[in-house]
Amino acid sequence: MTAAASSPQQPTPERFFGAINAYEQTEAIKTAVELEVFTAIAEGNTTAGAIAKRCEASERGVRVLCDFLTIHGFLTKDGTQYGLTADSAVFLNRKSPAYVGGVIEFLLTPRVREAHALLTEAVRRGGSALGEGNLVPENPDWVKFARAMMPMMVMPAQIMTAELLKGGAVHKVLDIAAGHGIYGITVAKQNPGAEIYACDWKNVLAVAEENARAMGVGDRYHLLPGSAFDVDFGGGYDLALITNFLHHFDPPTCTEFLRKVHASLGPGGRAAIVEFIPNPDRVTPPMAAAFSMMMLATTPAGDAYTFAEIESMLKNACFSRVALAEGQLGLDRLVIATK
Amino acid sequence: MTAAASSPQQPTPERFFGAINAYEQTEAIKTAVELEVFTAIAEGNTTAGAIAKRCEASERGVRVLCDFLTIHGFLTKDGTQYGLTADSAVFLNRKSPAYVGGVIEFLLTPRVREAHALLTEAVRRGGSALGEGNLVPENPDWVKFARAMMPMMVMPAQIMTAELLKGGAVHKVLDIAAGHGIYGITVAKQNPGAEIYACDWKNVLAVAEENARAMGVGDRYHLLPGSAFDVDFGGGYDLALITNFLHHFDPPTCTEFLRKVHASLGPGGRAAIVEFIPNPDRVTPPMAAAFSMMMLATTPAGDAYTFAEIESMLKNACFSRVALAEGQLGLDRLVIATK
Repeated sequence: MTAAASSPQQPTPERFFGAINAYEQTEAIKTAVELEVFTAIAEGNTTAGAIAKRCEASERGVRVLCDFLTIHGFLTKDGTQYGLTADSAVFLNRKSPAYVGGVIEFLLTPRVREAHALLTEAVRRGGSALGEGNLVPENPDWVKFARAMMPMMVMPAQIMTAELLKGGAVHKVLDIAAGHGIYGITVAKQNPGAEIYACDWKNVLAVAEENARAMGVGDRYHLLPGSAFDVDFGGGYDLALITNFLHHFDPPTCTEFLRKVHASLGPGGRAAIVEFIPNPDRVTPPMAAAFSMMMLATTPAGDAYTFAEIESMLKNACFSRVALAEGQLGLDRLVIATK
Repeated sequence: MTAAASSPQQPTPERFFGAINAYEQTEAIKTAVELEVFTAIAEGNTTAGAIAKRCEASERGVRVLCDFLTIHGFLTKDGTQYGLTADSAVFLNRKSPAYVGGVIEFLLTPRVREAHALLTEAVRRGGSALGEGNLVPENPDWVKFARAMMPMMVMPAQIMTAELLKGGAVHKVLDIAAGHGIYGITVAKQNPGAEIYACDWKNVLAVAEENARAMGVGDRYHLLPGSAFDVDFGGGYDLALITNFLHHFDPPTCTEFLRKVHASLGPGGRAAIVEFIPNPDRVTPPMAAAFSMMMLATTPAGDAYTFAEIESMLKNACFSRVALAEGQLGLDRLVIATK
């Protein structure tokens, strides 16, 4: 007998079958978060039987799920004992301060899944088969985003703020598509004189305002409810934050929007753009580059833009200097443009 | 600025986010097969524009899809030129004799996807949330299986047949849950005197019979339509083939069924069991072990059984000798049991 599957030199369809069944990883990690399997193990329930009892599930189901999570690197297994990997202990135990399990509420909404189920149609037409996708006004998915994603954004917001402080303190700050508000709030905390003007849908701003109050900057936090394309920003800002926003739109729309931002800045004012930014090859780094697929499936014309593309939009919007900051903000990069 | 994502020693949620979005790989590979992207590239269309024209899709959609396929190892990219990897050229070009793209028709049926969408419920109850899952009589998904999976099974069937021939020629062969029929047909071709009795649902047997005729063994091919649990097999077989069947059922059901097989064999008759067989740890090798998840989601009580479990079922069904053959049949293993 020969061993086709174990000869790496031979062509093999294994990667193909792995991709076909990749959705099982999505369902398994979602189920594990929903049932609090990682939290159960962190509490000392290490056998399928003990985890099942804690999670109110069947032992057989938990055994299959935990084996699957072990195969995919989320758990360890020693005999019949499951354990947490270092990453799972930090990020998936609900009692860990860095817990991020809540992001499934935003990242796996039915609308996002449906948009991908129609991917063939999206590739045919060059944009989401669901039309406006998640860009409809007051979409409650953005409230989920604001609530679920904030823990992930605390560190990137701190890194961004530290980088921006190198250019001097700021006083009047526009936070566009504020979401959870953490970027603007972090800037407010590090710039004690700064007033923050946060723009987003009204239902989303309620979350940002709640966070601003909880973090002690509520008295310097002002709301600009509505579409960022329509709201009157006012003027005289010395900083505008545009975080994970441009990727939803096509380059002409982004350029037009950046002109509006440019007009709202005072002399020497800066725009800080936080984005997934793939390299010019568009296939590295993998997670930033793969974000293009999310935008194809879920928006009419959005994309993960390269630095050259963002620079071109900013120059066309009359910004004078454009620089890509060193290093990462999590998976994001920071572009700073000066009026 | 620090680079959290690029410090492998630091805990990172990257694997978690990768798993959350893993379903995008499923949708992307399905779309690429449906649009014949790999075939288009094999024909010499190597830019997004040329592929888009050949596949009747948008250039923008094709560019994002091909970048995504490159990120996940299915294509190469050099400047604006896409190329096939060695595996994609062999298995995903529709004009390749080893093309397997058709398996998406069976592996990604709406029922299978729906069963996984209800995985939390399946883990709670310890079996498919859809009840009988795909085990209902005359389920047309098994016709899809028979048509789609045959190309994949030609080589495993040849390996199995060669191994069985070491034990001597066979004359009367029972092929249980024959599906495409390729296992029994291959045995018939290598044993010119053998008569094959194929059991499966009537609608599925039509595919097996068609294949038997096309492969020149139609005159030695006999049909036993109906449930393998209910049909009268007759007796005097010197070989019974039980390929990818036991994993759908729980051990008592398997044992009871193997007793029926045992009774149908003549003296010294053999049962050949082809199965995904994980190691005793149940987490290696990864693809065979992960098959447990597919059975949890889609069957009431099926599983990927270890050799010890299969051996126990066979011994309880009164088989005298049980042996695990060396090597792989693709992802499967072969167990030979003697009456």
